[in-house]
Amino acid sequence: MKSRFVVPVEFGDTDPATIVFYPHFFRWFDASAWRLFAKAGLTLDVLQTEFGLIGLPIAEAKSKFIKPARLGDTLEITTHISEWKRKSFEMVHEARIDGDLIAEGTEIRVCAKKTDDDEIRATSIPEEIKNRLSVS
Amino acid sequence: MKSRFVVPVEFGDTDPATIVFYPHFFRWFDASAWRLFAKAGLTLDVLQTEFGLIGLPIAEAKSKFIKPARLGDTLEITTHISEWKRKSFEMVHEARIDGDLIAEGTEIRVCAKKTDDDEIRATSIPEEIKNRLSVS
Amino acid sequence: MKSRFVVPVEFGDTDPATIVFYPHFFRWFDASAWRLFAKAGLTLDVLQTEFGLIGLPIAEAKSKFIKPARLGDTLEITTHISEWKRKSFEMVHEARIDGDLIAEGTEIRVCAKKTDDDEIRATSIPEEIKNRLSVS
Amino acid sequence: MKSRFVVPVEFGDTDPATIVFYPHFFRWFDASAWRLFAKAGLTLDVLQTEFGLIGLPIAEAKSKFIKPARLGDTLEITTHISEWKRKSFEMVHEARIDGDLIAEGTEIRVCAKKTDDDEIRATSIPEEIKNRLSVS
Repeated sequence: MKSRFVVPVEFGDTDPATIVFYPHFFRWFDASAWRLFAKAGLTLDVLQTEFGLIGLPIAEAKSKFIKPARLGDTLEITTHISEWKRKSFEMVHEARIDGDLIAEGTEIRVCAKKTDDDEIRATSIPEEIKNRLSVS
Repeated sequence: MKSRFVVPVEFGDTDPATIVFYPHFFRWFDASAWRLFAKAGLTLDVLQTEFGLIGLPIAEAKSKFIKPARLGDTLEITTHISEWKRKSFEMVHEARIDGDLIAEGTEIRVCAKKTDDDEIRATSIPEEIKNRLSVS
Repeated sequence: MKSRFVVPVEFGDTDPATIVFYPHFFRWFDASAWRLFAKAGLTLDVLQTEFGLIGLPIAEAKSKFIKPARLGDTLEITTHISEWKRKSFEMVHEARIDGDLIAEGTEIRVCAKKTDDDEIRATSIPEEIKNRLSVS
Repeated sequence: MKSRFVVPVEFGDTDPATIVFYPHFFRWFDASAWRLFAKAGLTLDVLQTEFGLIGLPIAEAKSKFIKPARLGDTLEITTHISEWKRKSFEMVHEARIDGDLIAEGTEIRVCAKKTDDDEIRATSIPEEIKNRLSVS
């Protein structure tokens, strides 16, 4: 399963060098991840009420920034899941402008529950979640 | 050289799970990097006028998120340069709450000039910049 | 002239009460303003190179927040210019969800030049700019 | 009661004109409001558990932007409550650089409860909240 997210670069996303301030890319990667989850019917509400999770929080995130994105550019971000582990999975986000790869990000997300003492703990990924996200 | 940056977690930094929305960490890492540069006398203005650079843009950024940060927490971010290459260098940012490591980030920054045709190109790091940032 | 801007509410836009953190509305109003300018051929680049302006900075901004916007909502923001003064103009931004008015914002923007001593000063709005933005 | 909040302008807060992108001011006004509430012992947690509120959401916000704030500037924001109504109150935020007024914002916040059908509804401000916020 793959999702596609179109992001126009706004004035407020750019810095004094007129290029995108890099943390915004992670904001867009996160938004793109939620699009993929939604496409699989896994909204935050469903994750919480049907699966008893608090969500799919981030354990690691990284990105290479290959070319700058500027005011007026339109980014196309494609997202897919690249690896499943028992309690976590890896997502890859590719941001392109007119087909050119601009940034390539990776997020490791964990399947997380709240413990009785209100802590956040990683838990095994329900098969149903894996299945829904693996439909091509 | 090391810089220390204290960041109170604000209401607007937190998400529906009442923990910090992760892209904010990269915003704080960037701010902490600029504090280190400023401590060495390398403000954006100095980098541009004295060294003819456009700045020290990001080529790569990553972070591990070890424990969540919540509304009311105060982060202490320490930043240092961990490696010098010819045209780039690596910075490490450690975010702690009451001494506990919460997130550990790495940025690779390049020394960048504008070319005649208005492109951004990596250039060798001036010795003077390296020296100023290497004072202990 | 009127512009229309569709904004999906993202996870990272919402706060612990699961509603949009209000400063994001101003971010979207600004983005919607730039859409209107772009529709009239007045990108930042054109404003700077053709008209010698630094931009159309904000002198005042306000908003009423009528109903909360939540994760999963899609906002439709319509923007128009409601009043012209000599050096400034007023824009109205209406944000709706499924036709329901959610927020109503107003921005007063000034036509601004850089003075010789690098200050920002309001200047008369060029007729050409007014004309381009007044086409229906 | 008055609170005082010191905000260094970060690189990521500034736009291509090297001045603060204005929605950040509202982010800082909100943070300054929470500082005043915290000073009165009214953290979000206390508002929710002791007073059964969902919080003190915004009904209106506005600001005049008098002079630009730039990278390297340090803002001092002072906040006080300027008017009490039955279910709402008005806060004034003054942002200064070296004593110069840069921006002056106003927020109208309502005392809000969740209804049984999960709607947000304004409710009378508890005397105790008013008292705690009125100590000089």
